[in-house]
Amino acid sequence: MPVTLLPGPFLDFPLNPLVGRLESSAIRDMLAVAGRPGMLSLAGGLPAGDLFPVDRLARVVAGLLATDPGLALQYGPTEGHEPLRAWIAAYESLRCGREVALDQVLVTAGSQQALDLVARTLCSPGDTIVVEEPGYLGALQVLRAAGIRLVPVPVDADGLDVENLAVRLAAGLRPVAVHTVTSFQNPSGTTLREPRRRMLAALADRYGFVVVEDDPYAELCFDGRPRPPVRSFGDRVVTLGSFSKTVAPGLRVGWAVLPQPLVTPVVRLKQAADLHTSALGQAAISGLVADRRWWRGHLDTVRAGYSRRATALADALGDVFGARLTLNSPSGGMFLWGRFTDGTSTAELLPRALDRGVIFVPGVEFHTGPGGEGTLRLAYATNTPDGLAEAARRLRDAHAGLRG
Amino acid sequence: MPVTLLPGPFLDFPLNPLVGRLESSAIRDMLAVAGRPGMLSLAGGLPAGDLFPVDRLARVVAGLLATDPGLALQYGPTEGHEPLRAWIAAYESLRCGREVALDQVLVTAGSQQALDLVARTLCSPGDTIVVEEPGYLGALQVLRAAGIRLVPVPVDADGLDVENLAVRLAAGLRPVAVHTVTSFQNPSGTTLREPRRRMLAALADRYGFVVVEDDPYAELCFDGRPRPPVRSFGDRVVTLGSFSKTVAPGLRVGWAVLPQPLVTPVVRLKQAADLHTSALGQAAISGLVADRRWWRGHLDTVRAGYSRRATALADALGDVFGARLTLNSPSGGMFLWGRFTDGTSTAELLPRALDRGVIFVPGVEFHTGPGGEGTLRLAYATNTPDGLAEAARRLRDAHAGLRG
Repeated sequence: MPVTLLPGPFLDFPLNPLVGRLESSAIRDMLAVAGRPGMLSLAGGLPAGDLFPVDRLARVVAGLLATDPGLALQYGPTEGHEPLRAWIAAYESLRCGREVALDQVLVTAGSQQALDLVARTLCSPGDTIVVEEPGYLGALQVLRAAGIRLVPVPVDADGLDVENLAVRLAAGLRPVAVHTVTSFQNPSGTTLREPRRRMLAALADRYGFVVVEDDPYAELCFDGRPRPPVRSFGDRVVTLGSFSKTVAPGLRVGWAVLPQPLVTPVVRLKQAADLHTSALGQAAISGLVADRRWWRGHLDTVRAGYSRRATALADALGDVFGARLTLNSPSGGMFLWGRFTDGTSTAELLPRALDRGVIFVPGVEFHTGPGGEGTLRLAYATNTPDGLAEAARRLRDAHAGLRG
Repeated sequence: MPVTLLPGPFLDFPLNPLVGRLESSAIRDMLAVAGRPGMLSLAGGLPAGDLFPVDRLARVVAGLLATDPGLALQYGPTEGHEPLRAWIAAYESLRCGREVALDQVLVTAGSQQALDLVARTLCSPGDTIVVEEPGYLGALQVLRAAGIRLVPVPVDADGLDVENLAVRLAAGLRPVAVHTVTSFQNPSGTTLREPRRRMLAALADRYGFVVVEDDPYAELCFDGRPRPPVRSFGDRVVTLGSFSKTVAPGLRVGWAVLPQPLVTPVVRLKQAADLHTSALGQAAISGLVADRRWWRGHLDTVRAGYSRRATALADALGDVFGARLTLNSPSGGMFLWGRFTDGTSTAELLPRALDRGVIFVPGVEFHTGPGGEGTLRLAYATNTPDGLAEAARRLRDAHAGLRG
C-alpha cells in the first residue's frame, strides 16, 4: 500500500568523484545485445558452460551438506577455507619451483576481487600503475575506481613489452605496480615469454615496484604445460589465480599469492570488504580438486574443448578472410586476436556485424588512448565448431558490405 | 623442488597508509581463543548453526544443478539474480509501505560488502560519517579503511540518540552519512524507536546526509513483527539487509536498497570489486524463499530458537548477578547487553572469565574512544539453554574472583 510522501528539498546526493566517473564496462553493455535471439556472440568473456563439472559438483555439494554443513554455511576465516588454501599453496609451489607458504594464500571472490584488494592496499589515489595495451578491461575499471593513474605499455606477440618498460623506467617512470595478464592474455591471447618474465622480476627488484601477475588462464594451455609464473623469478610479485575458467565463474572463487609484507594489510582489507569468500563455493571447489586424478582428467577435457573451438574459429576465419586478417596462433585461453591488413576499422565493422547476427569486441575498447583500430577480440569458448564457422561467414558478409 | 634465490635489495613494499593503519578486529582475534576445548563462547557473532535450513538447501541446490546449472555456475549480472532481486523488492516494499523498484536492489556479498560499496561511493577520504557508540565493529573497520572520519553519537535504550544528533547538526556538524543498526543493534540489542526513525529521515532531508540503515537482524524479532524501516519515512536512506541470520552467513548473500541517484555508481563499483555475488548462493536462496509458506514457518522456527536462548541467558544471569548486572530486555537479534552496577570493569573481568572457560566481549571494544568500562556484549545464538546457564555460573565465579 504505497503512500505518497512530500518530496524533500532535493539536495544532491554526496558522491566520491572517483566513483562518479566510473563508466560501465563496454563489454557488459554489449552483452545485452549478445542475448538477442539468433545472435552468435564472439564478444563476451564467458567460459564454456558445457565443460563445467556439474554432476561432480552436485555430488560434492550434496556430500558436504550431509556430513559437514557448518563448513559450507557458517562464517569462516577471512583468509579462506584452510584445505583449499593448502591445495593452492602446494599447486603454486610446484608451478614456480619455490615454496609458497600457506599464509601467503588468500582466497578471494574471483581474481577480480584480489586485484581490487591488492590495488587498494598498494596504492593511494594519484599513484601510478603500468597496465598493458591492449589490456584487460576489468583491470582498467578497478584501478580507475581506486583513483590510480594508468600508464600503458604495449603488448606484442611475446606479451608485455618489458624492454619498452625498462627504457621508461630508466627514463624516470616510477610505478607502484605493473599489472600483466601473463598467459593467454585478455584480449590479445599472447603469453609473456620466459626471458621477459625474468627481466620483469629483476626490474621490480631494481625499481621497487610490485608485479601483479594476473593468471586466470594459466591452466587453459592447449599443450598441458602451464608456464612458470613471474613469481618463480623474484619476490616482489603478487600472483592472482582463479577457478572461474577451470571449474565455474558463478562460484566466485579465486586467490592471491602475496609476498609476506603484504599478507596482513590485504587480509585486513578483505575482512572489511566482505568478511570472507563464499564458504559453500570454497568447500565445493576444495572437495573437487582434492581428487587429483579426477582433476587432471578434468583439466585435460577442458583444454581439449577449448583447443578444438580455437582451432575451429581460426580455420574458419582463415577460410573466409585469408591474408586480409592475421590472427595470433591459438595456444591457450579463451580469445583469438585479429588484425585486418586491408585497412578495415573494426569499430565500423561492428554495427554491420550486428545486422548480420554476430558480435565481437573492437580492439579500440582495450586501449586507454587511441590505437587498435584494425584489431578485434574474438571469444570462442561458448560456441560450437559449427557455430564458429557460421560466425566467420557472417563476419565475412559484414566485411564485404563495409568494403564493397 | 624449491630453489634458493639471491635476495633482492629489500626495497620496502608500497602501502596505502589508510590500509596500513587497519587493525584486525578484536573480536576476530578473540575467536581463536573461543575455539579452545571446553570454552563456552558468548563472544562471537555467529548465528545458530542448528537453525540453518540444511536439508531444504541441499534439495534446492540439487534441483538447481540438475535443471539449470548455468544459473548457479556461469557469470551473472552485477546487480544480482533477477528473481531474488524481485523477491527483495517485494519484501522491502511491503515492509516500508512504499514501492521499492527492482532496479533499486543490489545483491551483495553480505551486508558487509554493501556497506563497503556504499561508503566508498558516498565518501572521499577525510569525509565524515556519524557512527553509533557503542557501534558495530565491522562498520567502524570498513569506514576506517575508506579513510573516513568517524564521529560517534551515543546509543541509549531507544537506539541511536537522534535528539543528540539533531543538536550537533544544528551546531554545524555536516556528515556525509549516518550509519545505524536500526533493529536489535549490535552490540547493544536496542531498537530505534519509530519517532526517532521519522526524525532521522527528516534530518537527512534537511541537512543532506544519507542514512545508512543497516538492518541484518530485522527478521529476528521475537514478536514476529519487523519494524518499519527508516526508508518508510524518507528518500535519503540506503537500507542494508542480509540472509546471513535467516538462512546462513557462509553463502555471503545480502543486499542494498539504494535511492535512485546512487544505483548506477554503486553498481559500477560493485562490478569493479568482484563482478557479481556468488551465483550459486543467490540461486539457492532464491529457491528457498520462493516457497512463502515454508519461509514463514522457517522464520517462526528461527525466532523461537533465538528467543528461547535469549530468555535462558537473561534468566541465568538474573539468577547469579541479581541487581549487580542490568540487561537490556531481549526482544530480538543475537545479543544481550549488560552493565555492571557494582563498578566492575569488564576488561578486567575478561581474563578471569577466560580462566573459568567463558568468553565475552567487553563493551570498551565497541567504542571509538573511552567509555563502556562496565558493559559487555553477550552472544547467545550458538549455545544451548544448558550451556548458557553454565556460562552464567562461570561468569559469576570469575566476577567473585575479581571482586573478592
